[in-house]
Amino acid sequence: MSEVTNTGRGLPPNRESRSTERAVWAGAVGGLAPAHSLFPGLFFARSVKRTMAPRFDNISFLTDYGTRDEFVGIVKCVIADLAPHVRVIDITHDVPAFDVRAGSLALARAVSYVPQGVVLAVVDPGVGTNRRAIAVSVAGGTGIFVGPDNGLLSMGVALAGGADEAVELDNAEYHLAAPGDTFAGRDIFAPVAAHLCNGVSLRELGTPIDVDTLLPGIVPLPRQEGDELHAEVTWVDRYGNCQINVSPDEVAHLGSPVRVTLGARGTGERIVRSMPIVRNFGQIGSGLGLVVDSFGMLAICRDRGSAALELDLSPSDLVVLTRDDGSPAGQAMPVTLTAKTKPA
Amino acid sequence: MSEVTNTGRGLPPNRESRSTERAVWAGAVGGLAPAHSLFPGLFFARSVKRTMAPRFDNISFLTDYGTRDEFVGIVKCVIADLAPHVRVIDITHDVPAFDVRAGSLALARAVSYVPQGVVLAVVDPGVGTNRRAIAVSVAGGTGIFVGPDNGLLSMGVALAGGADEAVELDNAEYHLAAPGDTFAGRDIFAPVAAHLCNGVSLRELGTPIDVDTLLPGIVPLPRQEGDELHAEVTWVDRYGNCQINVSPDEVAHLGSPVRVTLGARGTGERIVRSMPIVRNFGQIGSGLGLVVDSFGMLAICRDRGSAALELDLSPSDLVVLTRDDGSPAGQAMPVTLTAKTKPA
Amino acid sequence: MSEVTNTGRGLPPNRESRSTERAVWAGAVGGLAPAHSLFPGLFFARSVKRTMAPRFDNISFLTDYGTRDEFVGIVKCVIADLAPHVRVIDITHDVPAFDVRAGSLALARAVSYVPQGVVLAVVDPGVGTNRRAIAVSVAGGTGIFVGPDNGLLSMGVALAGGADEAVELDNAEYHLAAPGDTFAGRDIFAPVAAHLCNGVSLRELGTPIDVDTLLPGIVPLPRQEGDELHAEVTWVDRYGNCQINVSPDEVAHLGSPVRVTLGARGTGERIVRSMPIVRNFGQIGSGLGLVVDSFGMLAICRDRGSAALELDLSPSDLVVLTRDDGSPAGQAMPVTLTAKTKPA
Repeated sequence: MSEVTNTGRGLPPNRESRSTERAVWAGAVGGLAPAHSLFPGLFFARSVKRTMAPRFDNISFLTDYGTRDEFVGIVKCVIADLAPHVRVIDITHDVPAFDVRAGSLALARAVSYVPQGVVLAVVDPGVGTNRRAIAVSVAGGTGIFVGPDNGLLSMGVALAGGADEAVELDNAEYHLAAPGDTFAGRDIFAPVAAHLCNGVSLRELGTPIDVDTLLPGIVPLPRQEGDELHAEVTWVDRYGNCQINVSPDEVAHLGSPVRVTLGARGTGERIVRSMPIVRNFGQIGSGLGLVVDSFGMLAICRDRGSAALELDLSPSDLVVLTRDDGSPAGQAMPVTLTAKTKPA
Repeated sequence: MSEVTNTGRGLPPNRESRSTERAVWAGAVGGLAPAHSLFPGLFFARSVKRTMAPRFDNISFLTDYGTRDEFVGIVKCVIADLAPHVRVIDITHDVPAFDVRAGSLALARAVSYVPQGVVLAVVDPGVGTNRRAIAVSVAGGTGIFVGPDNGLLSMGVALAGGADEAVELDNAEYHLAAPGDTFAGRDIFAPVAAHLCNGVSLRELGTPIDVDTLLPGIVPLPRQEGDELHAEVTWVDRYGNCQINVSPDEVAHLGSPVRVTLGARGTGERIVRSMPIVRNFGQIGSGLGLVVDSFGMLAICRDRGSAALELDLSPSDLVVLTRDDGSPAGQAMPVTLTAKTKPA
Repeated sequence: MSEVTNTGRGLPPNRESRSTERAVWAGAVGGLAPAHSLFPGLFFARSVKRTMAPRFDNISFLTDYGTRDEFVGIVKCVIADLAPHVRVIDITHDVPAFDVRAGSLALARAVSYVPQGVVLAVVDPGVGTNRRAIAVSVAGGTGIFVGPDNGLLSMGVALAGGADEAVELDNAEYHLAAPGDTFAGRDIFAPVAAHLCNGVSLRELGTPIDVDTLLPGIVPLPRQEGDELHAEVTWVDRYGNCQINVSPDEVAHLGSPVRVTLGARGTGERIVRSMPIVRNFGQIGSGLGLVVDSFGMLAICRDRGSAALELDLSPSDLVVLTRDDGSPAGQAMPVTLTAKTKPA
């Protein structure tokens, strides 16, 4: 199903010139310091396998790489080199650094929209350690998730119907040789994703593993405590909207508005607000509201402003929802808190 | 011209698994909390129409979505799913949140460079309210603008020759079913843009509307007051260059250098500088200059530095241009201002 | 090999409408101020040459444009218009503004991964001055670098094997007419890159120049001073990892851990740490380590944290490496520094 070839597509390495790479142009070396190898490991043989029967056209790509460095660009170069027919769709690369949970939630929100093909997701603080690199097929093989086995892929896979089969990516023939072990996105995941698009089978990429051994992700669930629904912030978007892990159905019995109690972080203070449950930002009016967001969850929002900034909210912050009985606490601060909290 | 099909390309929804999505892998559920639907609305039927005669190959895409969330990525997924042949060109997604004017100006600066096809622009604080979602054809149908009817598209359309015809996007057959009303970019604008590229006609997408009823944008114009030309900052770019709404022709009679008076925001202080009108940053020398920028407007600039930072300038700030008569005020602070203003 | 055509693909200019562009929609002008040309120079004839034999499919693209403005988007529009078959791969656009050295290093790190084709790199504070715009072919013509002759391209070209030939891009037939001289990326480099992909030969684009006259880049080399290896920070990535210009081979004789002395900037204080040389972040443990990074160089890192933040490190900061003899200074602060420096 595949054959061994050197792709021969990248710009050719220049091993001979290593000793003069501090000279910028061939021949312009005179007067500079002695030869020194600034990037000794850059050049390597790309002895990877290729097949001729493309299987997927899309790689949907999510990381915590950011875009201020060239990490994302290099991954795309590797893919373009190995599988030129593939389109790479950036889901986002601004998952907070090392934040596997935030990445898994972003992937979960996106996954039902990604086109058939490979989902390449890398938030991988354990890169180079013994955490497994994996590929997981879903939906009868119409989708394959590629990334680290650290819980990042778990919700996405579950939302796509669960894992059909999985392999540990331990067949180095499909990896790039590399001068260091810290960029698996470039050296393992990108070439594997490209080869999958080229038609290489999952099992050729590594050793089959029991899907029950894959690391689960932790999904935050709200908790009913007496009259109170204890929820948490799952996501603060760029507008400052704060999604919580509560759907409208779960608070339908509370009516609207709902009383929302927030614990200002680190201060011991509480903020109490009455918020209507609405369908768009315009319906909030001048205060704060619980908007049914685009993923069907409730989000604490301000119209044309940032609820996160006003309330100092971040992911994982506690949010308590109760019935708004019309007492002053729902509309303003209780007396004992008035002096220290923000005005309602 | 079109037929009803389910695209069948996206990863399939898994309605049955909803109750276990907190289990990450099929079979790995034991020991976790009872089933809970974190994203109850994620899955939906994509009963959209498609045609088989592609009409456009490009969608030029501008938003205030930012890239730290997955909004842009999801829109691209929807487009890739519905119209795989289309190339999406990101104009920018970092229009300041909710800033329709800034978005319309960025679109205006870009519009004469966008290739034939669809221009998809979304800065849409009124999403989900009764502001109209529209598509506007220009230039004999070689370009179609898609976005909210809030003034965002207006300058771009005008610069492309004005509206030929327009429709309100009220044919839900071409939208995605969605669990919330706050992401029209995903649910309305993206599928509409994709279907336009697939050959669906404008009129099939919604009800024709009189182009004279579309919301105009407000273009800031400079104002002559006696000897003073009152202008304003229209754009501060990432380098700190501050474009103003004045072309070189409009100040040709003032000669060079020109005296520029800025009101430091909120302080009542004024900053007065003498600035040469030049063609590139190198010609400024060590101070500030008025550079004829790449769009043919004047911009207050510093060579290899940020004029915006030095002068504390932001969009909409007032800028007064007068003849530089060589008096001290043009080269330095007038005595009465010296104490409070930055050194000239 | 080429013929003169007007591409005719962009949205058509609308010279007649210039005087009414402050009216948003044709016909909606009443009541606004007199006609004013906000963007007088936007529209221009695109009288560029095209050929019919595509030669390259990829343009790898690096700049300091950032993405908050539409600069990158406009360059892609120009390329899509002139060479629709080309894929543009963003290496990064967040090179610090005006920072030619940082751009050249990012390009050097990426260059052995870029696919065959054009490398378009623009960090160009001297735009519009007499610095030359150039194209440089490498590797037997399988790669061509396009950008300013200010040292930016030098390391990339050297790492790709050195310059084969070079031209100054002075044939204006392949440029876009423009209302200002400050956006060579749009007006010169992008159309040239597109035309190269379309098969236009290097020599048709301008006057051949001696490659020995191209501006060299300055590569920082470490310096041995007695027992001390004086190095410097070459790159701080988004995670806060601080690459230095030292390879593992160069400090192999020092053993592991190595003593690292940093001069806190501007304070005259020194920070001394003992750091193990390791292969991944997990091996660092709870402190700081020297990780062999993905380019084969050493980087000062913290596991799941930012070494740059902890040590206040930036590019060009001095780093001194010596043998760790186990004396207290290697593990903790020397007494005289304890009070003022961060705890070891």
